[in-house]
Amino acid sequence: MTDILLPTARLIIADSEHDADMLYAAGMFVPDAFIAIETDGIWHGLFSPLEVDRARKNSNFNHVYLDSPLRAAAENSGRSGLASIAAAFLDERSIKSVEVPGQFPFAYAEALKSWGFEVRASDGAFFPSRAVKTETEIKHLTHAEKLTRLSMMQAENYLAACSIADDGILRDGMSNKKVKAADVRRAIETFLIANGAMPAHTIVACGKQGADPHNIGSGNIYAHQPIIIDIFPRVLATGYWGDMTRTYVKGRATPEIKRLYNTVREGQDIGLSMVRDGADGTRIHQSITNHFESRGFPTRMVRGKQTGFFHGTGHGVGLQIHEAPGISSRPGILKTGQVVTVEPGLYYPGLGGVRIEDMVVVRDNGCDNLTRHKRKLVID
Amino acid sequence: MTDILLPTARLIIADSEHDADMLYAAGMFVPDAFIAIETDGIWHGLFSPLEVDRARKNSNFNHVYLDSPLRAAAENSGRSGLASIAAAFLDERSIKSVEVPGQFPFAYAEALKSWGFEVRASDGAFFPSRAVKTETEIKHLTHAEKLTRLSMMQAENYLAACSIADDGILRDGMSNKKVKAADVRRAIETFLIANGAMPAHTIVACGKQGADPHNIGSGNIYAHQPIIIDIFPRVLATGYWGDMTRTYVKGRATPEIKRLYNTVREGQDIGLSMVRDGADGTRIHQSITNHFESRGFPTRMVRGKQTGFFHGTGHGVGLQIHEAPGISSRPGILKTGQVVTVEPGLYYPGLGGVRIEDMVVVRDNGCDNLTRHKRKLVID
Repeated sequence: MTDILLPTARLIIADSEHDADMLYAAGMFVPDAFIAIETDGIWHGLFSPLEVDRARKNSNFNHVYLDSPLRAAAENSGRSGLASIAAAFLDERSIKSVEVPGQFPFAYAEALKSWGFEVRASDGAFFPSRAVKTETEIKHLTHAEKLTRLSMMQAENYLAACSIADDGILRDGMSNKKVKAADVRRAIETFLIANGAMPAHTIVACGKQGADPHNIGSGNIYAHQPIIIDIFPRVLATGYWGDMTRTYVKGRATPEIKRLYNTVREGQDIGLSMVRDGADGTRIHQSITNHFESRGFPTRMVRGKQTGFFHGTGHGVGLQIHEAPGISSRPGILKTGQVVTVEPGLYYPGLGGVRIEDMVVVRDNGCDNLTRHKRKLVID
Repeated sequence: MTDILLPTARLIIADSEHDADMLYAAGMFVPDAFIAIETDGIWHGLFSPLEVDRARKNSNFNHVYLDSPLRAAAENSGRSGLASIAAAFLDERSIKSVEVPGQFPFAYAEALKSWGFEVRASDGAFFPSRAVKTETEIKHLTHAEKLTRLSMMQAENYLAACSIADDGILRDGMSNKKVKAADVRRAIETFLIANGAMPAHTIVACGKQGADPHNIGSGNIYAHQPIIIDIFPRVLATGYWGDMTRTYVKGRATPEIKRLYNTVREGQDIGLSMVRDGADGTRIHQSITNHFESRGFPTRMVRGKQTGFFHGTGHGVGLQIHEAPGISSRPGILKTGQVVTVEPGLYYPGLGGVRIEDMVVVRDNGCDNLTRHKRKLVID
């Protein structure tokens, strides 16, 4: 008996709020885990009574079923849980072999195996097509990045409206209460919410906090020190993400900070100029790293801490904020239609951090920048 | 050789933004997947250069490691990916057997098995202690529910400030643009964001949309029809959720809607009166269902659609919006310190839906209501 004669299916069990493969398959948000099964190119969605009507109206599935009869069949076999409903569906069709995404829950896989199913994880991405965006997806990502840019302008305007007092900054026309990272974050996030996008943990990291790329920032905002603002909201209606970073100084930038900023901007220019169909992500990343090194900004460990440029140059963006392809030290060839960030950064304890990030569409002979926003260090 | 002699470990590979077990273990938000391993009651956290400094400062782990040396060791063995880093850590300690959460990614489990590890999913919850909250956790949940209640009041005040025109409602002092579900949602969500909580897909479902419990609502808000508002935000600083539902009519409620509302309120009172240490969730759920039936509101299929009370009475709330324990047709005994919702609802196509939801702490002789908000149908 050869493998090819066995009827097989592809199976996802997940909610579609957090699982991007499920959202890609279902085309609708469902907050609790449910079942999607592909057989012979036909997608079946199995839903609880709570969701089945909405799924019939709004989902992408070729067939939508109420899961209750299958649940009853599973219980008759002494089985329970979502995996047992999937098993009942597969049993009805004499399918004993399923392919699942790598992130498929281990306990469900074990249950299916114990009932005689062959379960194997997809080799690579479950939906390789997700990495290359359709024009509709690019429209959604363009919209997401537009909202991101507009929310960045909220932050710029907020900082512009502030005055400087000692080493802190004050909100004009208000008491002498110092402006905090949370105030700037609120200006960004209320705009996003009011416009149908959900911010994640927006980074507003000032001074030494900015030397740690994932520190989201807290406490006072200081004048004359770099402030990294990294905004990555998800549009509620579509599920697509925007992603953008700028670094500002409110007040005067020291020559050291200016040099750091200009070097990162040059690095981003190098990256943006190299992104195109067929480009090797490793070479892009290495070119930027080399440029930084040549300007006197090496990447190395200093007293047990990473310094310099120690994250990837970029990542894919779509229904996940971080998805394929990456642009980093790991090999990978870019393809037309992929949407990636280009976000070099330099981080030195004592000096602080600078990161600049745009989101672009890979095209045959270059890239389309979806961010289209000025890169300006100083806010007066 | 008996099983007990084998050194074993407990292993999580996940980010802590979405994986509540990982957040429980780490005590800090990390947006990308990382590794947590427990050996002999000691928790080890393995972090990339990007996160390790933050983890050293803020995480709950007994030991925090930079993962780079283990990554190098794994690559020397021809392995790659996060599972290989975990494997390198386990190899150093001669541990060949790991317990993982049920939601552990199948592909990682398969990789570990292929390298000779025994992998098994935890029998039930990975952290059974998560279901019973500490007083600190109850404080966090109380805060989350307070923000939720205050955001509900934003919606009440928004609707109160509107006037009625034909079958729609208008925002006072503005043009004759009809108020939409999105307007009410915005009033709720901007308040939440401004106060450090992240809304999910807040439900504002009017009229026939409310007959479908997971329809989040769209289009115009109509006068004289039930509007279900279900708000479930997550507090950003702590990761704990609030959850609360009210149903309103702007204008006049028909006698049918009033009767539906009062019946659901009575059902909730029955549920709230029965919640206590040792109570059987199935009996609570059945008592409410029976009450509805006795009032002439049965639960049954009508022309292929579920009608009546066809979701559970409640669910646990903590670092996940839906977690153990459930209060439903499935057996389960409540315990002191659990935090659960009590949210009966009735849904009939044509008539619409009514749901009322409070969040309570199970206590020895009853429950503490964390929602503490009036249940009032009509907003003038």
